[in-house]
This record gives sequence, C-alpha cells and structure tokens, in this order.
Amino acid sequence: MDKVQIVEVGPRDGLQNEKEIVPVAAKIQLIDKLVAAGLKRVEASSFVNPRWIPQLADAEEVLQGIARPADVTFSALVPNLRGLERAAASGLREVALFMSASESHNQKNINKSIEDTFPVLQEVAREALTLGLRVRGYVSTVFGCPYEGSVPLENSRRVTNALLEMGVFEVSLGDTIGVATPKQVHEKIGALVKDVTTERLAGHFHDTRGTGLANVAAALDEGLRTFDSSIGGLGGCPYAPGAAGNISTEDLVYMLHGMDYETGVDLERLTEAGAFIQQQLGRELSSKVLKASLACKTV
Amino acid sequence: MDKVQIVEVGPRDGLQNEKEIVPVAAKIQLIDKLVAAGLKRVEASSFVNPRWIPQLADAEEVLQGIARPADVTFSALVPNLRGLERAAASGLREVALFMSASESHNQKNINKSIEDTFPVLQEVAREALTLGLRVRGYVSTVFGCPYEGSVPLENSRRVTNALLEMGVFEVSLGDTIGVATPKQVHEKIGALVKDVTTERLAGHFHDTRGTGLANVAAALDEGLRTFDSSIGGLGGCPYAPGAAGNISTEDLVYMLHGMDYETGVDLERLTEAGAFIQQQLGRELSSKVLKASLACKTV
Repeated sequence: MDKVQIVEVGPRDGLQNEKEIVPVAAKIQLIDKLVAAGLKRVEASSFVNPRWIPQLADAEEVLQGIARPADVTFSALVPNLRGLERAAASGLREVALFMSASESHNQKNINKSIEDTFPVLQEVAREALTLGLRVRGYVSTVFGCPYEGSVPLENSRRVTNALLEMGVFEVSLGDTIGVATPKQVHEKIGALVKDVTTERLAGHFHDTRGTGLANVAAALDEGLRTFDSSIGGLGGCPYAPGAAGNISTEDLVYMLHGMDYETGVDLERLTEAGAFIQQQLGRELSSKVLKASLACKTV
Repeated sequence: MDKVQIVEVGPRDGLQNEKEIVPVAAKIQLIDKLVAAGLKRVEASSFVNPRWIPQLADAEEVLQGIARPADVTFSALVPNLRGLERAAASGLREVALFMSASESHNQKNINKSIEDTFPVLQEVAREALTLGLRVRGYVSTVFGCPYEGSVPLENSRRVTNALLEMGVFEVSLGDTIGVATPKQVHEKIGALVKDVTTERLAGHFHDTRGTGLANVAAALDEGLRTFDSSIGGLGGCPYAPGAAGNISTEDLVYMLHGMDYETGVDLERLTEAGAFIQQQLGRELSSKVLKASLACKTV
C-alpha cells in the first residue's frame, strides 16, 4: 500500500486562532492523544514573540509537558534566530520557517518584502542546520491572497526554490485562505512537482469553502504524499472570522484509508482526540467524521 | 465551457430531516430564492404518505405557492400511483422514483424486496410516461448500506438498468450514508458509465464524512455532469443523527465555477437563499461557503 504522511498542525495552526487561551494541560493532553493515535509528525507550537500570538506563549511548557517518543517528530514555527534558540532549547529536532508567495501577504504577515525576507530565513536555516535540526518551509497564499487575489505560479516557484536552496527538506504549499479547487491544484502542484521531487513537497489545505479534501485528492493524483491537517478541523481564516479552518485530520484519514493509503493512524483513537479538544473548547468543531462518529455513538 | 446541471434537493431531501415543521410560507420563499439564483431543476417535495414524513405533508401547498417559471423543472418523489396522482394534480412535469441497491435498505425503506419493488415502480413509471411526465430514478446505497456495509457494483448495475428500462431519463446514484471516497467513485461510476451514457447518470453525494466534494470531482473525471445537492448542506443521515447531510449547493457551485464549469447559478444570490433558510431554522448549517460568505460580510 502507498503511504501518506500526515503533519498534524492543530496544536499550532489550529489553536493559534482560538480567542480563549487553552490551558497548557489541555494542550499537552491533546498532543499526547494525537501521538497515541499514531501520528508521527506534530507541529506542537510556535516560537514567535508571545505578544503576537498570546495563545502560543506557552510553547516551552507544552514541549516540556508532552511525552516525546523517539519515533515522533515534533516541530514548531520559528520566525527568527530568537525563535530558533527557544526551539533548540526545548529540545526540538525540527523547526519550520514561513513566508508568502504574494508580496502584500508577506508584508502584512512578516513586515518585510519577499526579497528582504530571504536573508532572514537564510540565516535561521543556516543556524538550524548547524545545530543539526531539520528545517521545514511553508509557502502561504499559493492559491490566492486575501489582498491580491490570484497569485501567479511563478511567485510560488520562486519562494519554493529559495527555501529549498536554504536547505529545507520539505516545502508545504499553503492554500491559506481556502480558495483552491481541484483545477488549480492540478495546474499549480502539477507544475511545481516538475521542478521539485514530490517527496520534498507537502499540501496544506484549508477548508474555508469546502474544497479541502477534493484538493487533497487532486494533489494525490499529482503525486503528493504529505499533507498538513488539523484535529477536528481546528483553525480558521483571519480574513473571514467564523469561517472553517484547516482540513480536519479525521476527515483526511477517513478519505485516505478509503482510498487504500496507509497513514499509520488509528481513526477511532484520532476521533477521541477530536472529541477531547471539542469538549475543551466547548463548541462544535467542523470535522464531519467527528460529528458522524459522535452521532453513531449516541444512537 | 463545459456545463454542469445541478438538481437542488434541499426542499425535499434536506427539509425532510428537520424535526420542527418548517412553515409552508418559508418553504415557498426558499424555493423562489433558489430559482431566482438560477437553479433550473428543483426537487420541491415528496408525495409520500404524510404519516411517513409529516414534514412534507404540505407538498400540494408548496407547489401551489411557488413561482413556476417555464424554464425551471420542479419535481417530487413519488413512491406509488397515489403519489403520482397527487404530483400530476399539482401540475408537475417530472417525478422521481426511488429504490435501493442493497436488499436490507430497500426492505426497511420501502417494505419490499428489490425484486418486488420493480413491478410497483414499473407501473408508476408507465402511468407517469402515459401522462406525459418525465421520470427520474434514484438508486440509494450505491457506495454502502447502513445494514450490509459494502454493496457490490452488480447490485447497483441491476437496479440502474431496471430503472432505465422502465423509461426513466436519468438515474441518480446515491451515497446515502456518505461513506464513499474518490477511489470508490472512480471504480463504481467508472464501471457504470461504461454501460450507460454519462448523460443518463447523476451523482448524489452526502457529506457525512467530509468527502462529498472530493467525490464530485472524481465523478466529473468519470464524465458525470449532473449532481444533486442541498442548499446550506441541509439534510442529514437517519442512521447517524447529527451528522452532516447532502453536499451543499453553495460549496458545489463554488467548486464547479473554480473549475471553469458553467452552472447558470449566481453564487451570491444562492448564499442569500442559504442564509435565509439558516435563519429560518435557527441553527448553523454546514455549508462552508455560506459560513465564509457571512463571515466576510461581518468583517
């Protein structure tokens, strides 16, 4: 059977969107449950300035509290050398860098032009590699930008190649505002895999308009075998508060298993993790497998 | 541009799952709004015995109250000759017959074996065609049965062919409990389109596990150009109360337009219809485009 790697981003990309601070203990329990369900790659937090994202100010405590089995890779976002220092001090073996394919989103998000972001990330990547860490890269707004609308393929290609040249082992291509449909996925990912081996690309889809899993299926057709997702479908879209967030890990795993892909994840234990964080947050999450699973249990 | 036909089933497949009776006036307004958004095929109600589905006991009133532009085809489910009589008396030009691909679901739903259902539907079809009505057919549980689990392709083929031989112009292949993934869609629909021209088949997907639009994309690959969907994602799964229902018309139209298919539907007016019925029902519906659209409006 063909294998698919899932990068669980709920504790970071998901929880950073929550208004109410989630207690450290709940985050630790959540991550432990995700690992118990069989996930081998978990983005646990972000070492950005706590003033930017107060929800993730507890990154050190979370990383100190979770079980850290040797076969699971935990990672965290780092925007700069200070973040990298904190990540390394927390014993992480992987960090993730991020930037955008569109100029205005990069400017608003990182406060720098794309051109000026390269040397900063280059320095962080070099230092991380020197420390023996693995470095992942995120490219945002590959399929559309909240400020500019459509984003030329050439922009994504340029940023992807720059990250790869810095030594990142994998670039995650993000549909940050969830506008893609399978047609764009075929076109853009189809073009990018011609430059880069599929092993070095991942798909990061948001389900803002319901097309998330359809986009995964299209990306599978193009050879991608690594996808980011979020337990329960946690997360959202800062440009449309209330809209749906990342694709749900439960729904992704359901679809992949139905298509005979091996993920190593136990779907039942995974929905227990989803049910746990749903109860913690006190509102219904968007994962449909979670809903169906809880509905079946009450029958 | 390639055209896709959408059969809006919200007023029937959607509303029949609502516990609280929706007032006739609201149903009429909903259907008028759906038509105003550009939908050309609307399943308005069901002429089953009102004791079975009290929510749709007002079929005649609904059909009397709605605007009936000449270029829009309204239809309704009919289980028997009595239903057909009522449908014809309401001035409908199209009716829909239904049965299952799996024996136990057919038995529980229609109270007859598959074999014994054929002559009943045959009689209804003959009479409808004599009256000059167009007859549509539904096959339920094509991708899985709540009692039997997986359903052999051969069952769906047999029932589909039987319906076509009765003179139905189109068979809608239903993933009644929303278990399909793109792999099964490619396999089953890929096989059925070899027997039957794609023009005579439609896809009817439920989003119980989040794979609905991914399944539509797979069915488009197989040549299907007609899909059933439900405004707001109304509807549910009687076997998993609380689970998601039909694929949402808003999400379907968003994806199709993004893939350069022509639907004739104005997405903005469509979300107005979704917002209307969401407000009527007083709870958040599952359409993600609806959520994103309302979220953007409040920003």
